[in-house]
Amino acid sequence: MSRWEPNASGRLQRAALELYSERGYDQTTVTEIAKRAGLTERTFFRYFADKREVLFYGSGILQERLVQGIDDAPDTLSPLDAIGAALIAAAEPIEEIREFSRRRQAVIAANPELQERELIKLAALSTALRDALRKRGLADLAASLAAEAGLAVFKIAFQRWVDESGDSGGRTLAQLIRESLAELKTVAAGSGPA
Amino acid sequence: MSRWEPNASGRLQRAALELYSERGYDQTTVTEIAKRAGLTERTFFRYFADKREVLFYGSGILQERLVQGIDDAPDTLSPLDAIGAALIAAAEPIEEIREFSRRRQAVIAANPELQERELIKLAALSTALRDALRKRGLADLAASLAAEAGLAVFKIAFQRWVDESGDSGGRTLAQLIRESLAELKTVAAGSGPA
Repeated sequence: MSRWEPNASGRLQRAALELYSERGYDQTTVTEIAKRAGLTERTFFRYFADKREVLFYGSGILQERLVQGIDDAPDTLSPLDAIGAALIAAAEPIEEIREFSRRRQAVIAANPELQERELIKLAALSTALRDALRKRGLADLAASLAAEAGLAVFKIAFQRWVDESGDSGGRTLAQLIRESLAELKTVAAGSGPA
Repeated sequence: MSRWEPNASGRLQRAALELYSERGYDQTTVTEIAKRAGLTERTFFRYFADKREVLFYGSGILQERLVQGIDDAPDTLSPLDAIGAALIAAAEPIEEIREFSRRRQAVIAANPELQERELIKLAALSTALRDALRKRGLADLAASLAAEAGLAVFKIAFQRWVDESGDSGGRTLAQLIRESLAELKTVAAGSGPA
């Protein structure tokens, strides 16, 4: 029963999300998630601390990818464009899981405790982005602002990507990130009327 | 015992913050807060739902002031400058309560539950700013980005204001908001290296 299972974490995440969507988050137990995935509870707890963390497993991976993306960005890029490049690189694997992401957002939107957890994760992500920008030699204030602005671009692009139905053109997350980043620059540069 | 008490909510807020700082948030009861303020528990519950809400009473007032400030901003201002004007107007009464704000931040920083609450309040504030900008005729995407950017300016300026000790020059919150807003514009305009 403790043998290695191929893609166990992915199977558990999909099973959990199915059950949260069908029955509600509060009504679902770890036992049921493991059963739906065809795995044991012991395997579940090898990957996740509890049923809440199943929904936030991807947040840690996203943070690692974004920090790596900023580290990898050419020195010639401005701070905001370095974040933009990191966001677009991190978007690629996410494009594959649009339906998963949509259902995840719906589960979180229905539960205040999960919303709080999401906000905590986003705040941690902002701090990680700021620290990655500092490593590029950026001063504190500029790094904090660029991190917050970059995170806003991602949050807003991600929400639009999740909300967009196929018949509205089905733009990619990368396209929506580019559009949001360009719009942020316009907003920040604007000196005329709204 | 139920007579009107002058500035009861202010006295309760100060008493609560003193006790949270002295004994810790978890160790303080509503009974103790009311006693310290020289008021009854009944008066406490006339203003606050629970001991947590005492710390967030100001958030609602800030939100009202910011929305009003955006409504009042001249049409000739860009969205971000309209938020900037609203932030600077809202900063004025806050300048008076720096020590209170500093202790409040310390209590919140020491307690994950309070940090979550703070993030929820900030998310609500972002939504309120976005809606106020939409009322000025701004499109959804630009309004969302300007609201998030404006909120980042405030958060970062506020944190610096709270952190700064008197001997670092003791800049006002309004000055720090102006500086953060200018830096955000520089960051967003930058196309060169970090």
